Amino acid sequence: MSKLWQKNTSTERSVEKFTVGNDREMDIMLAPFDVLGSLAHTKMLESIGLMEKEDLVQVQAELKKIYREIQDGKFSIEPTVEDVHSQVEFLLTQRIGEAGKKIHSGRSRNDQVLVDLKLFFRSEITKLVKNTEILFEQLIVQSEEHKDKLLPGYTHLQIAMPSSFGLWFGAYAESLADDMELMLAAWKVCNKNPLGSAAGYGSSFPLNRMMTTELLGFDSLNYNVVYAQMGRGKTERILAQAMSSIAATLAKLAMDACLFINQNFAFISFPDELTTGSSIMPHKKNPDVFELIRARCNKIQALSNEIALMTANLPSGYHRDLQLLKENLFPAFLSLNECIEMTGFMLQSIRIKEDILKDEKYAYLFSVEAVNAEVLNGVPFREAYKNVGAAIEKGEFKAPSMVNHTHEGSIGNLCNEQIYKSFKANLKNFSFERVEKAIDALLA
Amino acid sequence: MSKLWQKNTSTERSVEKFTVGNDREMDIMLAPFDVLGSLAHTKMLESIGLMEKEDLVQVQAELKKIYREIQDGKFSIEPTVEDVHSQVEFLLTQRIGEAGKKIHSGRSRNDQVLVDLKLFFRSEITKLVKNTEILFEQLIVQSEEHKDKLLPGYTHLQIAMPSSFGLWFGAYAESLADDMELMLAAWKVCNKNPLGSAAGYGSSFPLNRMMTTELLGFDSLNYNVVYAQMGRGKTERILAQAMSSIAATLAKLAMDACLFINQNFAFISFPDELTTGSSIMPHKKNPDVFELIRARCNKIQALSNEIALMTANLPSGYHRDLQLLKENLFPAFLSLNECIEMTGFMLQSIRIKEDILKDEKYAYLFSVEAVNAEVLNGVPFREAYKNVGAAIEKGEFKAPSMVNHTHEGSIGNLCNEQIYKSFKANLKNFSFERVEKAIDALLA
Amino acid sequence: MSKLWQKNTSTERSVEKFTVGNDREMDIMLAPFDVLGSLAHTKMLESIGLMEKEDLVQVQAELKKIYREIQDGKFSIEPTVEDVHSQVEFLLTQRIGEAGKKIHSGRSRNDQVLVDLKLFFRSEITKLVKNTEILFEQLIVQSEEHKDKLLPGYTHLQIAMPSSFGLWFGAYAESLADDMELMLAAWKVCNKNPLGSAAGYGSSFPLNRMMTTELLGFDSLNYNVVYAQMGRGKTERILAQAMSSIAATLAKLAMDACLFINQNFAFISFPDELTTGSSIMPHKKNPDVFELIRARCNKIQALSNEIALMTANLPSGYHRDLQLLKENLFPAFLSLNECIEMTGFMLQSIRIKEDILKDEKYAYLFSVEAVNAEVLNGVPFREAYKNVGAAIEKGEFKAPSMVNHTHEGSIGNLCNEQIYKSFKANLKNFSFERVEKAIDALLA
Amino acid sequence: MSKLWQKNTSTERSVEKFTVGNDREMDIMLAPFDVLGSLAHTKMLESIGLMEKEDLVQVQAELKKIYREIQDGKFSIEPTVEDVHSQVEFLLTQRIGEAGKKIHSGRSRNDQVLVDLKLFFRSEITKLVKNTEILFEQLIVQSEEHKDKLLPGYTHLQIAMPSSFGLWFGAYAESLADDMELMLAAWKVCNKNPLGSAAGYGSSFPLNRMMTTELLGFDSLNYNVVYAQMGRGKTERILAQAMSSIAATLAKLAMDACLFINQNFAFISFPDELTTGSSIMPHKKNPDVFELIRARCNKIQALSNEIALMTANLPSGYHRDLQLLKENLFPAFLSLNECIEMTGFMLQSIRIKEDILKDEKYAYLFSVEAVNAEVLNGVPFREAYKNVGAAIEKGEFKAPSMVNHTHEGSIGNLCNEQIYKSFKANLKNFSFERVEKAIDALLA
Repeated sequence: MSKLWQKNTSTERSVEKFTVGNDREMDIMLAPFDVLGSLAHTKMLESIGLMEKEDLVQVQAELKKIYREIQDGKFSIEPTVEDVHSQVEFLLTQRIGEAGKKIHSGRSRNDQVLVDLKLFFRSEITKLVKNTEILFEQLIVQSEEHKDKLLPGYTHLQIAMPSSFGLWFGAYAESLADDMELMLAAWKVCNKNPLGSAAGYGSSFPLNRMMTTELLGFDSLNYNVVYAQMGRGKTERILAQAMSSIAATLAKLAMDACLFINQNFAFISFPDELTTGSSIMPHKKNPDVFELIRARCNKIQALSNEIALMTANLPSGYHRDLQLLKENLFPAFLSLNECIEMTGFMLQSIRIKEDILKDEKYAYLFSVEAVNAEVLNGVPFREAYKNVGAAIEKGEFKAPSMVNHTHEGSIGNLCNEQIYKSFKANLKNFSFERVEKAIDALLA
Repeated sequence: MSKLWQKNTSTERSVEKFTVGNDREMDIMLAPFDVLGSLAHTKMLESIGLMEKEDLVQVQAELKKIYREIQDGKFSIEPTVEDVHSQVEFLLTQRIGEAGKKIHSGRSRNDQVLVDLKLFFRSEITKLVKNTEILFEQLIVQSEEHKDKLLPGYTHLQIAMPSSFGLWFGAYAESLADDMELMLAAWKVCNKNPLGSAAGYGSSFPLNRMMTTELLGFDSLNYNVVYAQMGRGKTERILAQAMSSIAATLAKLAMDACLFINQNFAFISFPDELTTGSSIMPHKKNPDVFELIRARCNKIQALSNEIALMTANLPSGYHRDLQLLKENLFPAFLSLNECIEMTGFMLQSIRIKEDILKDEKYAYLFSVEAVNAEVLNGVPFREAYKNVGAAIEKGEFKAPSMVNHTHEGSIGNLCNEQIYKSFKANLKNFSFERVEKAIDALLA
Repeated sequence: MSKLWQKNTSTERSVEKFTVGNDREMDIMLAPFDVLGSLAHTKMLESIGLMEKEDLVQVQAELKKIYREIQDGKFSIEPTVEDVHSQVEFLLTQRIGEAGKKIHSGRSRNDQVLVDLKLFFRSEITKLVKNTEILFEQLIVQSEEHKDKLLPGYTHLQIAMPSSFGLWFGAYAESLADDMELMLAAWKVCNKNPLGSAAGYGSSFPLNRMMTTELLGFDSLNYNVVYAQMGRGKTERILAQAMSSIAATLAKLAMDACLFINQNFAFISFPDELTTGSSIMPHKKNPDVFELIRARCNKIQALSNEIALMTANLPSGYHRDLQLLKENLFPAFLSLNECIEMTGFMLQSIRIKEDILKDEKYAYLFSVEAVNAEVLNGVPFREAYKNVGAAIEKGEFKAPSMVNHTHEGSIGNLCNEQIYKSFKANLKNFSFERVEKAIDALLA
Repeated sequence: MSKLWQKNTSTERSVEKFTVGNDREMDIMLAPFDVLGSLAHTKMLESIGLMEKEDLVQVQAELKKIYREIQDGKFSIEPTVEDVHSQVEFLLTQRIGEAGKKIHSGRSRNDQVLVDLKLFFRSEITKLVKNTEILFEQLIVQSEEHKDKLLPGYTHLQIAMPSSFGLWFGAYAESLADDMELMLAAWKVCNKNPLGSAAGYGSSFPLNRMMTTELLGFDSLNYNVVYAQMGRGKTERILAQAMSSIAATLAKLAMDACLFINQNFAFISFPDELTTGSSIMPHKKNPDVFELIRARCNKIQALSNEIALMTANLPSGYHRDLQLLKENLFPAFLSLNECIEMTGFMLQSIRIKEDILKDEKYAYLFSVEAVNAEVLNGVPFREAYKNVGAAIEKGEFKAPSMVNHTHEGSIGNLCNEQIYKSFKANLKNFSFERVEKAIDALLA
């Protein structure tokens, strides 16, 4: 019995293997941010007399060198080294001796991870926002470009009212604009400094947390050290929720695209090289890219729930469980960025069918228009409604040749400029430049 | 075979029963907001010539009367009436005749629901934020009050470092402050006007959507009408995510409380009338309230996932599925508000054990302090560490009688004032007053 | 500050209100099962000498009377009574005096709830399985009835291969058959007796748990009393997972139906009285019932995750949190049964379009058939493929007038009989009859 | 604008990269099963005249060789090859020429993946069940071994009643026994043959699906070809649900362990080499392994929800989305197996504190015992209760020195033998041997 567990000669080895898990693979993404944290921390240590001036000079120079090595892809975590923090310290000590070990004074592994994560998340949010901005702009341009191309609007998936590709592209642009509200919340939660919280209960060293806050370009602090630690898991969840909002927008667009490419709708198509098919089924243009955008985005939508499940009912204070939150969150950044890019990439090549609404099956789309037109001409609504109903019944209904919608946000008045301005105005609330300047200064 | 489905004499009845579901029960909460929407819409209709001046006067007077009846609890949805919108129209027409029917000109059921939901959500966010503010203030006061009472800080649920009730209360206050960032995002997404989007594709009437936006106190519009409709489901999900953040904070506090009340910890206790127990088990003080806060809050954390599951992969345009989102979301507002209130109510009566750390099992809590103290006196870290380790091994370790943490957010420097200011500053970003003024004006 | 929480004059009242919550509303569903549990428990008590013979006679007679009152809808939980268990005891004591109080000897509230839940769940599973069986049979009949009606089969939502309504109906029948595997697992987990576990740690009374197991018709016991308590939350989650499987089947069928009713597909339709529409949009037949089946079923799919979130990371032993699991689970039984019934009800009236595949857009559906036909005539595959490709390119491709699929489970050989037999065979694994007999005996 | 998406010189390349994703990495796990599928399929092809006898001989020999190469770790998917199916075909054709290409006759990529997945899942279920069996047996042994060691039983996390390590170990053993019910359901759903469903709509070849069913050791078929395809996503979800049940058991055990190791409880401990700590905090024994088991298992609990979100509202028929289900499911098998093993490994070294209940804080644990003892001696319950209450109040309460629980599943009568038998009996329902024999025959 139980033979299974006896296969390891050294018990520690199996424990170590199990506890390290895939952590090294994830940690590599934290490397540049770990160096940034140490650059700020050591400056602060020197300012409060916990590091000698000459040690600081050495440490700063070497850390910047390691930073460049990371950027150049020359950094890796060795199999004998547990995590990224140890690897950086190991390199440092190897190169400049004893002084390298001092970078940990006045902090613990816990707040080192916390600050690394916040800096990493800030960087990932920046990428996501910038990528979203590019897609947003494209959608606005395409909305204007295709504003005169009508398509059926569906409710209950039933043909209902005239819509347009101007509305369709513009709707997703405006959706991305709203998604930025949640991302801004995530940014504000991320952009607070946890450094100095030590193991989650602070330290008896006279740390200057305001100083590291400024050096790292944070807007403010996670003041309370117990809260700083409590931010782990919470920050991840909020970020995942913000990502889920963009993801939901892209997934819906992808679902629309899959439907519109379908031959029964046939509103849009894409060049052969962007779809897959078969020479004996020439009509078949599989929208694999949109299907995978949809699937990836739905996967991202599941992420915050996973985090909630892994952190639910844990009392305050650090638990090792938190380490595992990286595993699905970190790859999701790349995945979502790729989905944003591929959505833009595909839509650039979209081909929209001309005169979709000429098909007789869409004739009744215009019945509400016809009623409204009579009403605007003074006919009471009920009478107008009866007239149009009667015409339809007798087969005498003539669909208007065009729609005349003029109010804000309608087919004839898309308000893309207002949506554009609103998006851009909101972007200013992200303190990207302030952060960039701080990081540049740290690395100078 | 299939006899089961034949039990209804009229097929329509079973369909109607199934499709209406619990909707009336939910809709009652929308009643005041439905009236507000109609007050604004009819003013706008008159301004563009789609309603006569005298009809408007009548309609406005009667709608305000219905509003007061709703406030007074004298409004209900009759069993023969499908939903709240029909009920309001029915009452209106019953009382002022034909003019009552005109309130629907230029809009559809779809955008009527959309605007009702946005107004309702705005109102619920206001309540949640105001309730959170009260709890936040109490936690700050209690943090200051108990700042000198130490308790063990745990990592890995292992005794680790000294903490304090000042830190404990303050951490949850600061957590609520961060939770307001997500709530602000939800507010901004909610506080945009969807009215005028009709069935989700706009209208050929020359509606003035800017006017209703101002009348209803919205910050801005959901411009694009397709996006306005797309906001359904999305707004609910974002709101549920914002609620989940407060919920997660309260659930963690409740978990801590359940642990601290447990006799093995015994850090806190509550008066008998707030717990349940048994006369033959005098030590038993069941923390039912905290257990139920925890459970309710975890339930609220599940909400956004439910919404995601119900809306995933639906193409754009209205689907009847969206009606069901109300069922678990609407009661969650009341539940979360009750959890906020009960948390404050319970904590008001908290009794904190004196001198917790005098128990010898907590002696080693201070070992890091002792090392740091030597370091600050000039002893190199490794030596200090060795000294303390040796003292502990020989049983000669003397725990310092107090902790001296001075940095920002530590036991001796809680920064509650800064946390307080930050919370209050963020509250200003909610446009509560602007909204209140607009609503007052509409009802004047 | 904190004025909010001071509004209650008596603190206990607010605590009581909060802790009782909606519990009475849920508990009413447990009433008959609470009586059954007491019928068995008291017989056992008498057998081990903890109840007098004459008390037992009185108690049994009165409990059976209460049972009939519950069946007749004459039972309610009074506002001053906390839960169903107290209400039953209260009635009993009111009617037969002191003897009524003895029904709780040797058990605690905890194992009383546990056994009530298991008996209730057993009963609900029985209903769900019987309802599923009816729908299954209907689908098999409809599969046979419509086996010759072809429709396009889609992959990637692209027209791909010929399919048939025989396949479509039959696929959902077979899906329900597989769903019964999970339901059987739920049944087996539910059908074990927890009675006698007391507060989750057993009792010093010489209870005869085998006897109550037999009296209540359970297959076996939850032996270990700590596990019996641990089954709370777990049983609910497993049951919710089993329900999610049926729900996923129905939701997919509903999605198919919504798509097939859509005018661009137009494969099926329903009588006007089963859809909603508009006289000026005569083509509009909104499939509200299917949309709501889809939404309800997706909601049910979210249920097990909610339970997981509410129970994650709770250590062993009872927690009050478990009470709240009832709130969304109990109504889900009714909801799922209604969805099963409405699916059957709607499908009974389905109208299938004739000759769907005659539309030229489906011509290439048959290209694979054409290739295979040549291969079966001895032409090498690559050559056959080239031939068909060339014919298509030249516009000379002639779609075969029919399909000739003969293998198991294909258009021409649906294997409905095998599927039917397999469904029926699996039903035998549910010990419905055994349970029914035991309950009849208890109530005799 | 949109510059981002223009960085790829060849558009196809970015599409290909995006659509392949991590698929190769996942597919490698399917390799042996892909070969098994082809071994069976080609035998069947030959039997219906679609493959020459001599081709079959060659193909079979070479496939078996490839199978051995896979087993020996000598197989990989080349970067230029899309997936495992292509790689196997590529190797085959490279080695035996044209005959190698014939293995795809009469099937499509879709049903090849389906059968690979089912065979793979069957194999993973076998591993999970066998691993669970080992842990189950260990728990039963440890339950017997420690049956006399008492510990406090908690309700509401409040000290409540005496419990024992016999109960504690045994409860988790019995929990695993119930978990096997869901796993059996997953096994039954997996163990049906989808091969022959082609692209999800069957084929005009006269395939003999019964023959491949037998050759591959399946219990039965997914008859209906549309249902066979519909099983994708569904099978994964059911399997994830079955895994979540084991995961929930292990996570709860791990939570208990973390609590019991905590110094305030201090019921159990582990050798230093299995925990992490610090020389200056000698009491600190961080239970990292249990924390990570808890976290991994909670992650696994999130899996079925992710699958539900990715498949919700997809109409019937294949969608590329299904490919992504592999990404989190496949690694979960290894992770759960490791959690099962590490749980057993850790528990083997558990050290249980002696005489836990001698601590005076546990005295009142025995108050219910005392009451029951009087009752069994003929004192009416209310009087006994009053007596014990009074003794406690006067400080004269004497806790009994031992507990005397005798009923089934109680401290003194654990029923481990019955639990053991029940577990073993259920294992017989898995058709492991039948499957093994079939596979051995295929490879012979």
